[in-house]
Amino acid sequence: MRGYGQPSRFEDPVKRVVGQPYRAVSPGTGTSRTPLQSLNGTITPNGLHFERHHNGVPDIDPAQHRLLIHGMVGRPIKLAVDDLLRYPMVTRTIFIECAGNSGANTLMKPPQTSAGVLHGLVSNSEWTGVPLAVLLNEARIDPKATWLLAEGADAVAMSRSIPVQKAFDDVILALYQNGERIRPEQGYPMRLVLPGYEGSMSVKWLRRLKATHEPTHTKDETSKYSDLQRDGKARQFTFLMEVKSLITHPSGGMSMRRSGQYEISGLAWSGAGRIARVEISTDGGVTWNEAELQTPVLPKSVTRFRAPWKWDGAIAYLQSRATDEGGNVQPAREKWTARFSPAHRYHNNMIQTWAIGTDGSVTNVFG
Amino acid sequence: MRGYGQPSRFEDPVKRVVGQPYRAVSPGTGTSRTPLQSLNGTITPNGLHFERHHNGVPDIDPAQHRLLIHGMVGRPIKLAVDDLLRYPMVTRTIFIECAGNSGANTLMKPPQTSAGVLHGLVSNSEWTGVPLAVLLNEARIDPKATWLLAEGADAVAMSRSIPVQKAFDDVILALYQNGERIRPEQGYPMRLVLPGYEGSMSVKWLRRLKATHEPTHTKDETSKYSDLQRDGKARQFTFLMEVKSLITHPSGGMSMRRSGQYEISGLAWSGAGRIARVEISTDGGVTWNEAELQTPVLPKSVTRFRAPWKWDGAIAYLQSRATDEGGNVQPAREKWTARFSPAHRYHNNMIQTWAIGTDGSVTNVFG
Repeated sequence: MRGYGQPSRFEDPVKRVVGQPYRAVSPGTGTSRTPLQSLNGTITPNGLHFERHHNGVPDIDPAQHRLLIHGMVGRPIKLAVDDLLRYPMVTRTIFIECAGNSGANTLMKPPQTSAGVLHGLVSNSEWTGVPLAVLLNEARIDPKATWLLAEGADAVAMSRSIPVQKAFDDVILALYQNGERIRPEQGYPMRLVLPGYEGSMSVKWLRRLKATHEPTHTKDETSKYSDLQRDGKARQFTFLMEVKSLITHPSGGMSMRRSGQYEISGLAWSGAGRIARVEISTDGGVTWNEAELQTPVLPKSVTRFRAPWKWDGAIAYLQSRATDEGGNVQPAREKWTARFSPAHRYHNNMIQTWAIGTDGSVTNVFG
Repeated sequence: MRGYGQPSRFEDPVKRVVGQPYRAVSPGTGTSRTPLQSLNGTITPNGLHFERHHNGVPDIDPAQHRLLIHGMVGRPIKLAVDDLLRYPMVTRTIFIECAGNSGANTLMKPPQTSAGVLHGLVSNSEWTGVPLAVLLNEARIDPKATWLLAEGADAVAMSRSIPVQKAFDDVILALYQNGERIRPEQGYPMRLVLPGYEGSMSVKWLRRLKATHEPTHTKDETSKYSDLQRDGKARQFTFLMEVKSLITHPSGGMSMRRSGQYEISGLAWSGAGRIARVEISTDGGVTWNEAELQTPVLPKSVTRFRAPWKWDGAIAYLQSRATDEGGNVQPAREKWTARFSPAHRYHNNMIQTWAIGTDGSVTNVFG
């Protein structure tokens, strides 16, 4: 018996895939991706939650860490972890998706790799922490303050501007992830969780919130995380992660051993709320059938969908198309690409197509 | 960046507590308990799910493992893990509680220890696997078969008798726990999950299901897991884990540093369904106030409850009392003890009382 358990040695290949940094400016910069094709259910185990670091993972002693809330507030406050543990808390299951997730599918040719490497910058956890509204009220935030600068304690002081309206709506200052205290690579000892918004706004290792009357235009929201339009202009502050889905079983790199009965299964999510419907096509989008949604279907959380499928051994093109409760429908590739510059890589929620070969091979194709 | 993450080194004390075996008959026999007082939310991280082993943890190669379904069936079947991965699956968040949980509170004097050591033989996970009904139908189980013998692949071949009716109702042959494949100490590569029933029936490392027309009366359901009555007789097959709750914050061994505002928080669950209500008393059961239940409230899952509390620095006696959707109410200590022999240790769902001293110390008292 062990104090803290680990997976079976036979599951050793199930690891996050550590990717190359976009630009290798510093050690510890880059991503590691959740192996979605090896998982089932909706929760991402903490050891496999994706990582996106802008300058490494700080090793923070919680006894030394403080959160400062200042700027346009009536009463600046400085909070220790022990103080925060006495506050009222909430628990919510929420997905976090990096704005750059699925970016490789915006290239000219479909990369041949796993669902995790292609789409594994999304993970889903049960987060527990203090509603940010409680702390902003305690600091007596000025009604004229419309933005917050949120700053992390990593080496690069990663920072984003957050609308105060969102902070009062549903932002959590999270201390626990899937029951236990947040892990170092997820922001230990505390991080923001902004349900439905692009992942980089859920600032990790949070050390400072400054109330302001306009966005701060930090380096992390000008040089990055802006959306290149077809006219060459970049659009800022496109926070919402739009409706999206993905078949994980079967998926890229897998091999179907023989024809017969299978379960098609995957994940759907929307930053705008609950998933209302997921449709499955096995003929590249000509015909569609509704998949079963695993309950409970929670807002701004991942939903698992399932559909039975009898594979007859012929070539097939598998797609999933999600619709959220606001009626937003996941776009086909052509529709998505028509919106943006060909050089745009963020906010890719286009439909994924997996081709099944007669040999049972599963490949990534642009449908 | 790491392929598989671990908690912060500052959280190193948050471990399962490995307990003494009830009778040290063999190595690896006994329990390790979830440190409930260090967790929040509702999910138990896989590394901290409690363990109860009857003869160690087998090291099973999933490629070699088979599940045999035989006995009163029309068509015996033998299933490999790879076969099962093609079957239709379901995902449900379900608590598992050992029948012996909280047994120490049935002794004459209240043990002074943590909530986890006292009550940590309960954990809550998102389980994913194949509905057992699908497999029993495939094996064409005889309508006259009313019981199943479920046998594990551990050294002692831990086995329990399970009513077929329960198997068709909601039993899962689980392959995944909190998203990833089940860990060795939780039954890798497959286990049963019997929602709401005593933990030992959720047989781990499942290798055999035999359909029978009566219970098998295995050693694990005669010498153990039977309920000693006041008349000296032992009652068998009391499967249901009844309605229960527990305050985890504050709890035994903690120290409140100063008077002021706190959040009382804890866990409630019932094998009979959803939690309908949790009431909190701070005066040892004289007056009660309803706590807030964290949504979604799921059947046969743990529910987190919370209530604000202003501690005035005086002696206080904290209790929680849960009621489930069937109207079953968690009993006070006197009511529970009146049902059983003084030597009975199983199925203890009595109300827990924590005493707060004027020095802020939290101790276990019998209310």
